[in-house]
Amino acid sequence: MSQKENRDLGLGVKSGPVAARGLNKDGSFNVERTGISRFSTSEVYHSLISMSWGKFGALLLTFYVADNIIFAFLYMMAGPENFTGVGGQTWFEQFLDMFFFSSQTVTTLGYGRTAPVGTLASTIAAIESMIGLLGFALVTGLLYARVSRPDAKILFSKNGVIAPYRDGKAFMFRMVNKRSNQLIEVEAEVVVSMTDKKSGNRIFEAMPLERSKINFFPMNWTVVHPIDEKSPLWGITKEELANSDIEFIILLKGFDDTFSQTIYSRTSYFREEILWGKKFTGMLSVGANGKRVMDISKLDDMEEAPLPEEKREAKNMEHA
Amino acid sequence: MSQKENRDLGLGVKSGPVAARGLNKDGSFNVERTGISRFSTSEVYHSLISMSWGKFGALLLTFYVADNIIFAFLYMMAGPENFTGVGGQTWFEQFLDMFFFSSQTVTTLGYGRTAPVGTLASTIAAIESMIGLLGFALVTGLLYARVSRPDAKILFSKNGVIAPYRDGKAFMFRMVNKRSNQLIEVEAEVVVSMTDKKSGNRIFEAMPLERSKINFFPMNWTVVHPIDEKSPLWGITKEELANSDIEFIILLKGFDDTFSQTIYSRTSYFREEILWGKKFTGMLSVGANGKRVMDISKLDDMEEAPLPEEKREAKNMEHA
Amino acid sequence: MSQKENRDLGLGVKSGPVAARGLNKDGSFNVERTGISRFSTSEVYHSLISMSWGKFGALLLTFYVADNIIFAFLYMMAGPENFTGVGGQTWFEQFLDMFFFSSQTVTTLGYGRTAPVGTLASTIAAIESMIGLLGFALVTGLLYARVSRPDAKILFSKNGVIAPYRDGKAFMFRMVNKRSNQLIEVEAEVVVSMTDKKSGNRIFEAMPLERSKINFFPMNWTVVHPIDEKSPLWGITKEELANSDIEFIILLKGFDDTFSQTIYSRTSYFREEILWGKKFTGMLSVGANGKRVMDISKLDDMEEAPLPEEKREAKNMEHA
Amino acid sequence: MSQKENRDLGLGVKSGPVAARGLNKDGSFNVERTGISRFSTSEVYHSLISMSWGKFGALLLTFYVADNIIFAFLYMMAGPENFTGVGGQTWFEQFLDMFFFSSQTVTTLGYGRTAPVGTLASTIAAIESMIGLLGFALVTGLLYARVSRPDAKILFSKNGVIAPYRDGKAFMFRMVNKRSNQLIEVEAEVVVSMTDKKSGNRIFEAMPLERSKINFFPMNWTVVHPIDEKSPLWGITKEELANSDIEFIILLKGFDDTFSQTIYSRTSYFREEILWGKKFTGMLSVGANGKRVMDISKLDDMEEAPLPEEKREAKNMEHA
Repeated sequence: MSQKENRDLGLGVKSGPVAARGLNKDGSFNVERTGISRFSTSEVYHSLISMSWGKFGALLLTFYVADNIIFAFLYMMAGPENFTGVGGQTWFEQFLDMFFFSSQTVTTLGYGRTAPVGTLASTIAAIESMIGLLGFALVTGLLYARVSRPDAKILFSKNGVIAPYRDGKAFMFRMVNKRSNQLIEVEAEVVVSMTDKKSGNRIFEAMPLERSKINFFPMNWTVVHPIDEKSPLWGITKEELANSDIEFIILLKGFDDTFSQTIYSRTSYFREEILWGKKFTGMLSVGANGKRVMDISKLDDMEEAPLPEEKREAKNMEHA
Repeated sequence: MSQKENRDLGLGVKSGPVAARGLNKDGSFNVERTGISRFSTSEVYHSLISMSWGKFGALLLTFYVADNIIFAFLYMMAGPENFTGVGGQTWFEQFLDMFFFSSQTVTTLGYGRTAPVGTLASTIAAIESMIGLLGFALVTGLLYARVSRPDAKILFSKNGVIAPYRDGKAFMFRMVNKRSNQLIEVEAEVVVSMTDKKSGNRIFEAMPLERSKINFFPMNWTVVHPIDEKSPLWGITKEELANSDIEFIILLKGFDDTFSQTIYSRTSYFREEILWGKKFTGMLSVGANGKRVMDISKLDDMEEAPLPEEKREAKNMEHA
Repeated sequence: MSQKENRDLGLGVKSGPVAARGLNKDGSFNVERTGISRFSTSEVYHSLISMSWGKFGALLLTFYVADNIIFAFLYMMAGPENFTGVGGQTWFEQFLDMFFFSSQTVTTLGYGRTAPVGTLASTIAAIESMIGLLGFALVTGLLYARVSRPDAKILFSKNGVIAPYRDGKAFMFRMVNKRSNQLIEVEAEVVVSMTDKKSGNRIFEAMPLERSKINFFPMNWTVVHPIDEKSPLWGITKEELANSDIEFIILLKGFDDTFSQTIYSRTSYFREEILWGKKFTGMLSVGANGKRVMDISKLDDMEEAPLPEEKREAKNMEHA
Repeated sequence: MSQKENRDLGLGVKSGPVAARGLNKDGSFNVERTGISRFSTSEVYHSLISMSWGKFGALLLTFYVADNIIFAFLYMMAGPENFTGVGGQTWFEQFLDMFFFSSQTVTTLGYGRTAPVGTLASTIAAIESMIGLLGFALVTGLLYARVSRPDAKILFSKNGVIAPYRDGKAFMFRMVNKRSNQLIEVEAEVVVSMTDKKSGNRIFEAMPLERSKINFFPMNWTVVHPIDEKSPLWGITKEELANSDIEFIILLKGFDDTFSQTIYSRTSYFREEILWGKKFTGMLSVGANGKRVMDISKLDDMEEAPLPEEKREAKNMEHA
């Protein structure tokens, strides 16, 4: 796979200059898909396993109650006289009895104080008990999927910075693994996307990194792209950056040793999210016992870091 | 792995000129396997997880009813007098009672209004309840497998086209991800398969692509094979193509970020599915908010695109 | 990874000349492990998911019956008078009642005709019902693991052959995918293992193959190692082979598209399994509809194929 | 990925000379993470599937008893008079009845001897039965995850050794697969980490190995790093090693053929764990039947092995 082939990420070169970013901060794509029903088993499944626990619990409760109401009506149609132990006098009291009978049936609890007698009533109960078992079988799978899927979460620094680096400067951002899952063989790729002045097409360029892979990720990792002659950003000024539609697209890949799965993470830094003349301050310290200590809350900590502008001016001159 | 080794895809060189295509449109192989029982756990499993939901539900219902009928007979043999609460007078009424008792047993519902008394009756019920639990345990696994397996679906354009490209022409087809699953690091490989005039063997040649990999696949991807000197199709005419047994075999590989699994997709374009002098029209537009919009229903949209035939003639001359 | 590094497969060079083969026909290793308890969760799990269905069913039934017998005794100790609906007079009759009560409890069936009254009896029942649920929860997982694990089965020809090839000869064996699972990107590696005359050590040499990878595996694949100057077998005679301790170790790797998993298969051909001067006959034919037909039962079919011995003699001369 | 990039493993170069090792013997990292709530679904899940079986069982029992106590209280509040078959006279007797009723409800056992009558009582029971089903659904998933996760366990020799090798010496350690899971394509990487005298930074250097990959791992594997001119350890003395903060970091990667998953293992040898002038003694023998026999209990067996010090002295001279 040559570098050249790699450049278009699949975000489309023809889309031309656009106001919006291609990749959202959360890694989702800024693309709208129309002309097709998006419904499919996997859509439903994916939303069921990715929704919040509160929402998931509420959904289950709703289904449970709805099932009991529906079947309570069915049992009322079959006639409460076809059940043992129905004490209710009024329609509503009997409906309640049927409601609870339904709950005892769908959960296969079956106390038996209330039990169907006639064929119709027994048939409906037989159906409900099967639906119940299938439903809870499905929930078993969903619960397993929810708890067992890797949720490795990479925290990226809110901003990228243009910081002094060696005798020049570099684009840097910082990240940390929020979870204590062990991530192994983590690879970073940074691609800059901007509109080509001439063609008006969107161009994508891979940005060479000081280091693009680490074996472990127990601490923070500051990814560094030196802005030298080979860099697509060479000679850019603060103003040019601010007025451009430059977007830095970040691709991260690693192996989650806890869940034995390859995980991917994406984010992007859009023009206004890149701070000029700042640098990140340390997150690491050495504890009394010589053990390294990392304070994750310091991820976004940075300080002023004046850039060697004059030197850059000079360089630009001879460059021109 | 050298290119040369790659060429035979495993579809057999010796099979000689055949009327039928090697790979069907849906990616299945046009091969019949005989001389072996195809039955195996994985065959059954695979058909159970890949059949439609309707069929799967019908199958479960069938098993449920069949189980209840069988055990109802067994209970009748054991004698209805060995059960409490059997109200039925006629054989059929008693059979129904037993049928419902069976349903209450296999689902472990166990109201208890009807309950076994004798040893034989109790033994059969003990067996049925275990069968029930095992059966529903199996169904739990199947349901999980059905919902959790990746069903990423790549839509390929119905036809491939020979379209103008640069100052020559190219073979192109287009695809889109039907699901909203994120596909990452998608690689395409196109192999042309035709009968060699001399040897009469089937030959396979990898076709170089303008781009063979994209990082993301949120939009459509038009795969392009330029028909230049290096192409196995160099200098072919519309008539030659139509009369050949040329088959374009498409191999797609990607990583499904939603299900954390590598997925493969295959298809092929057989002679009559390749349109001459057409090109695909755009599926992308930019919404008011600057957001890209892709209309998937436009996948097969194309328009006339006259090819630089005279230029090709000329080239062929000096080529001859 | 250099070829050289690859050569020792991890079967030990120091083990010296041994009567037995290193790898058994079924791909298991001919190594005995001592000095450690081999018991572990994964050992038990693995045997539970790989044992035959019959054995697995028998095991479940045994556990079920054993549980009921044990708890029946416990209930008898708690005293049958502490249960409702115990009709039995003799100890054994009561034991039977308790046995069936246990089965109704462990499956959470709970008819309730027999139900615990006293504290002790209720406590034991509460424990059994929990054990039952956990047990069937475990069985659910095991059943899922049993049906969902890939069982792709590669059939290797019973024998390898030394067959005529081009103007010389080659070592060949043949294989086919027994299942209809789609195997993709199948790679073969053949390593010859023999005792080095000088050092007395076991040496391993990778044998170059005519083709070592295929994209699909819908048909049979005959793997060919040409015996030319570069081959470790160059100039070997039928007698030398028969008297050697040569073992051909076959490593196969592929991706199971049905189960989305990478699968490995291994086998080996030991001296007496290599036939001299034979060749495989075709398994493929073209059906009336032009569809390829493969008869798997013909996997081991071969015919006499005289080798160009005289030519070999000649070659050896100039080689000496 | 160039060697240079590979060197920093992600353990931090800036942390400077530290008393403690970077990687613990069990492969965990010697890093403390602060400034963030470490709670997350995956944390809880991971601890639930990795805790001991005893602890897991105790946890389940605790939940079961706690649930029954809580609901027993709720039922008492609803009033025992709203239940059938409550025989208890005193508050405590009735509480016990409710406790057991709760256990029969949460397991969906439902004998029915005790059953709710009023609306409130029935509602609480309906809720508990649902909680019970969901709880056991969750446990089903956890049990499956516990038994099905690969627990391939690599045993590393307690010590690394500096042993004679060819005409010089080498760093060696030995390992064996504790499980009988088949591990395939096992790769080892050894990195030495020490403090750079000048910069005071921690430096990481990959150590070239005599062999870094084996295809199978049925026996023991002694990993060998020859200490020659190219080695970062070239010319080091026993004293220098003892006084340094040198740490050998071992990375192992393989494919578990039993669980069809890639597994990783890590360990490290810190200065005092490296023995000077020892070598490992054999673990392999050949049984009567010619079968190889490996005694895993011999993993740490070693013997004195005087090093060619004088030769080294000489070498150092000309080296200086």
